[in-house]
Amino acid sequence: MIIVLSKNITDEQKQRLIHRIEKLGLTPHISEGVERTIIGVVGDERILQGKPIDGMPGIEKIINVLKPYKLVSREFKNENTVVKIGNKAIGDGDFSIIAGPCSIESHEQMLSTANFLKENKISFLRGGAFKPRTSPYSFQGLGKEGLEYIKDAGRKNDLAVITEVVDARDIELSYEYVDVFQVGARNMANFSLLTELGKQDKPVLLKRGMSSTIIEWIMAAEYIMLKGNSNIILCERGIRTFEDYTRNTLDLSAVVAAKNLSHLPVLVDPSHGTGRKEMILPMCLAAKVIGADGVMVEVHPEPDKALSDSKQSLNFEEAKKIFNKIRKLKWED
Amino acid sequence: MIIVLSKNITDEQKQRLIHRIEKLGLTPHISEGVERTIIGVVGDERILQGKPIDGMPGIEKIINVLKPYKLVSREFKNENTVVKIGNKAIGDGDFSIIAGPCSIESHEQMLSTANFLKENKISFLRGGAFKPRTSPYSFQGLGKEGLEYIKDAGRKNDLAVITEVVDARDIELSYEYVDVFQVGARNMANFSLLTELGKQDKPVLLKRGMSSTIIEWIMAAEYIMLKGNSNIILCERGIRTFEDYTRNTLDLSAVVAAKNLSHLPVLVDPSHGTGRKEMILPMCLAAKVIGADGVMVEVHPEPDKALSDSKQSLNFEEAKKIFNKIRKLKWED
Amino acid sequence: MIIVLSKNITDEQKQRLIHRIEKLGLTPHISEGVERTIIGVVGDERILQGKPIDGMPGIEKIINVLKPYKLVSREFKNENTVVKIGNKAIGDGDFSIIAGPCSIESHEQMLSTANFLKENKISFLRGGAFKPRTSPYSFQGLGKEGLEYIKDAGRKNDLAVITEVVDARDIELSYEYVDVFQVGARNMANFSLLTELGKQDKPVLLKRGMSSTIIEWIMAAEYIMLKGNSNIILCERGIRTFEDYTRNTLDLSAVVAAKNLSHLPVLVDPSHGTGRKEMILPMCLAAKVIGADGVMVEVHPEPDKALSDSKQSLNFEEAKKIFNKIRKLKWED
Amino acid sequence: MIIVLSKNITDEQKQRLIHRIEKLGLTPHISEGVERTIIGVVGDERILQGKPIDGMPGIEKIINVLKPYKLVSREFKNENTVVKIGNKAIGDGDFSIIAGPCSIESHEQMLSTANFLKENKISFLRGGAFKPRTSPYSFQGLGKEGLEYIKDAGRKNDLAVITEVVDARDIELSYEYVDVFQVGARNMANFSLLTELGKQDKPVLLKRGMSSTIIEWIMAAEYIMLKGNSNIILCERGIRTFEDYTRNTLDLSAVVAAKNLSHLPVLVDPSHGTGRKEMILPMCLAAKVIGADGVMVEVHPEPDKALSDSKQSLNFEEAKKIFNKIRKLKWED
Repeated sequence: MIIVLSKNITDEQKQRLIHRIEKLGLTPHISEGVERTIIGVVGDERILQGKPIDGMPGIEKIINVLKPYKLVSREFKNENTVVKIGNKAIGDGDFSIIAGPCSIESHEQMLSTANFLKENKISFLRGGAFKPRTSPYSFQGLGKEGLEYIKDAGRKNDLAVITEVVDARDIELSYEYVDVFQVGARNMANFSLLTELGKQDKPVLLKRGMSSTIIEWIMAAEYIMLKGNSNIILCERGIRTFEDYTRNTLDLSAVVAAKNLSHLPVLVDPSHGTGRKEMILPMCLAAKVIGADGVMVEVHPEPDKALSDSKQSLNFEEAKKIFNKIRKLKWED
Repeated sequence: MIIVLSKNITDEQKQRLIHRIEKLGLTPHISEGVERTIIGVVGDERILQGKPIDGMPGIEKIINVLKPYKLVSREFKNENTVVKIGNKAIGDGDFSIIAGPCSIESHEQMLSTANFLKENKISFLRGGAFKPRTSPYSFQGLGKEGLEYIKDAGRKNDLAVITEVVDARDIELSYEYVDVFQVGARNMANFSLLTELGKQDKPVLLKRGMSSTIIEWIMAAEYIMLKGNSNIILCERGIRTFEDYTRNTLDLSAVVAAKNLSHLPVLVDPSHGTGRKEMILPMCLAAKVIGADGVMVEVHPEPDKALSDSKQSLNFEEAKKIFNKIRKLKWED
Repeated sequence: MIIVLSKNITDEQKQRLIHRIEKLGLTPHISEGVERTIIGVVGDERILQGKPIDGMPGIEKIINVLKPYKLVSREFKNENTVVKIGNKAIGDGDFSIIAGPCSIESHEQMLSTANFLKENKISFLRGGAFKPRTSPYSFQGLGKEGLEYIKDAGRKNDLAVITEVVDARDIELSYEYVDVFQVGARNMANFSLLTELGKQDKPVLLKRGMSSTIIEWIMAAEYIMLKGNSNIILCERGIRTFEDYTRNTLDLSAVVAAKNLSHLPVLVDPSHGTGRKEMILPMCLAAKVIGADGVMVEVHPEPDKALSDSKQSLNFEEAKKIFNKIRKLKWED
Repeated sequence: MIIVLSKNITDEQKQRLIHRIEKLGLTPHISEGVERTIIGVVGDERILQGKPIDGMPGIEKIINVLKPYKLVSREFKNENTVVKIGNKAIGDGDFSIIAGPCSIESHEQMLSTANFLKENKISFLRGGAFKPRTSPYSFQGLGKEGLEYIKDAGRKNDLAVITEVVDARDIELSYEYVDVFQVGARNMANFSLLTELGKQDKPVLLKRGMSSTIIEWIMAAEYIMLKGNSNIILCERGIRTFEDYTRNTLDLSAVVAAKNLSHLPVLVDPSHGTGRKEMILPMCLAAKVIGADGVMVEVHPEPDKALSDSKQSLNFEEAKKIFNKIRKLKWED
């Protein structure tokens, strides 16, 4: 940690600050510059987190040198984490495809989707039973009934099931139905939810918040891992910017960053990331070549009857073509 | 609702679309342009929300004409909502000041703060017992113990108590301790939490999400009101932008917009909105002249020992000066 | 300047870096931490600007301690700059109002506007002859003809004239017609234009770029002042964010920041900053109470016939009311 | 064009509006809804651009249906534009690589870079002689001297030369030295510069502005093409967002959008787009698979001595590896 002192700090303020640092077991190194004095704090600066240093008078700014996360970092664990889900895995070197509708709408819808996925050798079925919607007048999901449909469809087709939990109370209710708990973008900073998921023995797919920095996203994973659950899959799904041609701005650099900074697998969701059907294939191909561990795409038997996200959902024919093109993309490194 | 058709829509697609609209009890008005055809849908377009129109083939875009919210709108209720909290009120024409520390840290801290506020004729005490923090290593709040401290401090000084709930499960636990439930920026789109708060008989202070549009913020209030709780106070606290000199970008236009679009009282939080002590006074004065119903500011007996937000917290002396200057600002309209 | 070294820097890389710093006449102070080593560079770090340090191997990041600007800073000159424009001034403690249409459209339009302003004791007339428009099909301004209209209207009504230059070549052409050169948001980082304006003996009104940070805005003023022209007026006009209810997000914190960081006068343009008529009065009042030196507002004899910005332009009656309310706002500090 | 009328429009206002539309030779189609009336305007709505409709009283909002650009659109010209540069081309189906330093620093630097590129079968040499820099204290480029170096280096190695012009006055000066004029991000909305470039007979490489929407970027190309120059190459280089881990947020969706909306070739600049060396290879591969026509990357003989952008510049060895990996990426569609 580096502390830049104000030009007009008093001697007494400086002494109080040095004293406080030393009391915390750290060593201050003072460099007196021509215009500013800086203090380099030597020792494990993480012990300063949550400690009231930055409000002390006479400080211009504080710069953290160390990364604020530990367990999820590449420095802590160098080899890639492989998340095992029954007889399947994400992060094992294969490029995974997760597919399914935004909302679970009926038993038939889930069965036909699951069947389609199985035929196309896809291993992961997604679908939401609890839908966070901007409007209280929009379809809010089928709840427990939906969970039954997706579980049954998954079981009958040997697919691992991924579904979103929007509230810590949903975890218990959902537990027996799902293979992977999804945390949506709106809940990335719902620390109660993250903490509860950290206590579960099933993997968590953690979407990046729509206005979260890469570091905040990784910190959210640290919340989960700190509680004991290290089976975390990160998922980039676009950030909110001024651009309105796309629904969000898909930030593929964040995938490269997350792969470098952490040992966790990282997926890309081009359906929410762009909100446009015609961009799904190119963004899936891009995800593959930049080193993502897979993609999550919205597929619906009849997109024009979907109760949510119908504009960005693929029908079976479109999805099949895209799956094939993703698989054909192979190159020597 | 206006539907702009693609240039290359087929006649069959057009007929299916018109048929679907009519089946929903609405009337399509077709205007054939030189380059594009548009369909104006006449009737209550809210019945189309959650209905699968936008994924139908042949549609270029859909434009909603009506506002997506109803109960919170000025059109629904023209007069200002006054939120009553015991013998106090927000939105009654007086400019309210809510003050207190970011985190509840000790009984003494709350007592001395409450006493200071009472002496300065402030009616509302804030303080957090459950702290949503980016890092799991940061101070997370005192929980129930903190609620006891703030309640006691409030009761002894005749202050209404405002505290944040971060999870639907906190509501029951917090209920007996608080006068106003606060929804923080990170939870503005936690619809489970909003729905539960809609069933409560105590007011809700709803902060704007850091990347929420004004309309999404108002929709979040609609969630609460739709469940029966109409005692909602909006609070602008800054949005996330590229600017990093301030912690957030305080969007005072949003206050004017929210006052125009809805009948709810609107507060401003300059502490989080700017993250800088020297900006709190000017932003409080600005809040007053633009028609906000009050401000919420961070005050701490010893800011340089605060366990969170120490940089933006005012000490008692600073707070006193600011309260006085806010009160002195009077002008004939 | 602080240099944080990579964990895996080699000794040879470290020696090369230290050598380079010393060769530049600066002194490196080395603090060896548990996980990282940092080098505090003592001396005038501005001599490092434009020097190739940050690409050297073994460096994790470089943190600048000193401010990158000098001449425009409060530290360089503590007292407020008063910009004199003939017998008028901006920044002298009075709250200035600059008004007029977005585009100069006709001689009559300028004469009637100027006459209206004079009657209302406004001293500054604005109007654009060269209009930067997103579409090449939109009205591009009257050019030299427009400059003649605005000059004549100003002269006849004793108003100082402010008009935008969009290209270094316009300066010579405009010189004889204008009292203050305006740099628009799109040209804030047009360094050729800034450099040329730095050589002029007439004041410059410098708008903040729509995606410029506060520091970049101040650096743009430094460009002008470094060439010799210290008569600069800053003007906040809103930044581009995800919010689309307003045309831009007016950042009033930036005004407070600019007043603190620099000695230059700072104005607010609520017309472009919000793009909404109903927000102009509240934002003008806010500008006044936070310490801005004035406002710039769009006024047009017949807004619904304006060739640009008709939606945010005030007619004479509306403008008159707003001028009066701004003037009536007085309070003891 | 669709005009949504206010709830409280008067009959007289409505009649005036209809009259105005008819006077412009367009046909208004009126749909009276339950809560709102809308007017669909039939005819070429582009004749309304720059006409004062939106400021008329009684209008809630105006929605444009047609695209605001024409010449650059796929609808105007369906086949891809191939930009020919001497015996070379961009947009002809091959994936082009443009490389070179950010700034031209010396004759030797340009000669060794050009020689390296030739050896690696790269056809395009970039380098800046006029550098737009945030700080007036940073290196501003060698000017005409730099142009001589790059021209000579290009000529000796059969490379086409691309260099930035920052001011309309630079065009004449640069003309004889360059093969492609580059418009940088800061100048994308410098309409004087665009207009002048539209009169040239050499191609223009148009970077997207850092806060420009995709549509504004395409409109900037329309400015150039409207003046007669149809040899335009678009280049995505990252937009400004809240994320600060990367220098900008590279928006690869914008490339897909630009390829769909226009017939112009589109490049990607991952050097500025990410500001991080380790992201250049993945982003080049991504650019290739999503259908971009090429990339522009920063290469420098000794990046750690570069006078600008040293952190994101590749040395020859790094660049060679990346060029090879880009070329090896081949897949059947």
